[in-house]
Amino acid sequence: MELYDLVMRRRSVRNFRPDEVPGDIVEKLVNAAASAPTGCNIQPLSVVTVQEAAGRAKLGEMIKRQPWVKNAPLSMIFCLDFWRLKRWAELSGVEFRGHDAFSHFLLAYADVMCAAQTVVLLAESLGLGSVYVGRLPYVADDAREYFGMPTYVLPLMLLCLGYPKTVPRRVPKLPPAVIGHREQYRPLSDDDLRTAFDEKYGAFDGDARRYFGRVLGEALEAEEQGEGEWLEGSRARMAEKAVASNAEFVFKVRYRADLMVETNAAAIDIFKNAGFDCFR
Amino acid sequence: MELYDLVMRRRSVRNFRPDEVPGDIVEKLVNAAASAPTGCNIQPLSVVTVQEAAGRAKLGEMIKRQPWVKNAPLSMIFCLDFWRLKRWAELSGVEFRGHDAFSHFLLAYADVMCAAQTVVLLAESLGLGSVYVGRLPYVADDAREYFGMPTYVLPLMLLCLGYPKTVPRRVPKLPPAVIGHREQYRPLSDDDLRTAFDEKYGAFDGDARRYFGRVLGEALEAEEQGEGEWLEGSRARMAEKAVASNAEFVFKVRYRADLMVETNAAAIDIFKNAGFDCFR
Repeated sequence: MELYDLVMRRRSVRNFRPDEVPGDIVEKLVNAAASAPTGCNIQPLSVVTVQEAAGRAKLGEMIKRQPWVKNAPLSMIFCLDFWRLKRWAELSGVEFRGHDAFSHFLLAYADVMCAAQTVVLLAESLGLGSVYVGRLPYVADDAREYFGMPTYVLPLMLLCLGYPKTVPRRVPKLPPAVIGHREQYRPLSDDDLRTAFDEKYGAFDGDARRYFGRVLGEALEAEEQGEGEWLEGSRARMAEKAVASNAEFVFKVRYRADLMVETNAAAIDIFKNAGFDCFR
Repeated sequence: MELYDLVMRRRSVRNFRPDEVPGDIVEKLVNAAASAPTGCNIQPLSVVTVQEAAGRAKLGEMIKRQPWVKNAPLSMIFCLDFWRLKRWAELSGVEFRGHDAFSHFLLAYADVMCAAQTVVLLAESLGLGSVYVGRLPYVADDAREYFGMPTYVLPLMLLCLGYPKTVPRRVPKLPPAVIGHREQYRPLSDDDLRTAFDEKYGAFDGDARRYFGRVLGEALEAEEQGEGEWLEGSRARMAEKAVASNAEFVFKVRYRADLMVETNAAAIDIFKNAGFDCFR
């Protein structure tokens, strides 16, 4: 298959067959991560592959309400790793302060995600499915302790992989004409913007299950995998906030900026706990 | 070609033929970016494609000492775009504060890089070469003004693309056995760590040009494209700091953590100028 077709066909997969991912495939995924682009060829990356029951259970315990985490036969923890560089600098009598440098963080996080997305596409080409779990940094204290990560190693992205039991249908997306701009950024007019989001999400539907089926398949997936809390919680919140539009659903139920602003200090503290004091 | 082979073969390309990248190829690249994974399906991404002489010249002016920026027939500016979401929320009478939320920044930057790396691999499969230019966020004030980006749009990564004139040979890298960890993170012993970096960089060589040829091809590439300053500057700095080891070269010449820490406040201000106040 052409890579273009693979890219356009790829969906996040949350429902995996229990089959183990063979060692030679895991090796290819790690090789691919290690050969991803890296700013200044610094390679501030470590990848922990988790296949054993204990590690999977621990990840599932840390990341609540996402049953695919423990159900995935393979998880890959993508870490920003400045420990290795710092130790090398120390052993060489040179100073290293990348962990306190905002620009180093930006560059290194880009590296981490280049590696992760390379693995996503390679996995897809090998018949695997995958889903990102963005919640990992907020449980980094626990994750670092359990997985034995020293100071200056920060787990930033979790990728869960396995052979798909089911591949979800396409989720509604903004079209490329909205994402792409030629030569200049062109802000959408209010009308075009409303149309773009209306077309993305479709008519808002009072029926929560049908709505979830269309725009939030994860909720139904979680329910099928024995974790109904997500669906019930979303429903309750929809009722509580009298959600009557797609925008209200997105910003009051699913992607609550209010809550996230509240977590800033805690999240920045987690970075500090890992030795990263780069946001000042 | 299998995607695995493509991933393992890919090199950053900085020397492009002048040939224009055809419109249907640019369209595929944008389509691929728009279909990359995105946390909560929020799509906080815009991509500005730059092919015209004026935009290329402006980018080349902003990003100094990287002549491939103006020489690349196609540049893609990957932006974290919260403007669109914020406007949609406003039009819908809902609050949006993602631009002040650290966790939203982390998630959205991951999205931006997923899209960018998808483009890197797709471009490679279509016969194009590419190189990331990580300096873009530090000239974001200028870039936002020139490319007409409103508040809450932050250009985070530049990708320069074109048909390769030359493909560089493999750059020295740490092996996958150092990047990958099974089940648990295993810190390298001091000896293993020294060995890993010694093997990556090879014996340190007093001859700067030969050394650059092995570990910093960009310097020679820049010189060939009429920008000798990088090579001369690195040489002068090597002499000034009496650089006598690979670690000294990396941390005193190429990847200077001291300088980068000094730029923290300015970089965080640039984020604030774009409406992002998420690091507190």
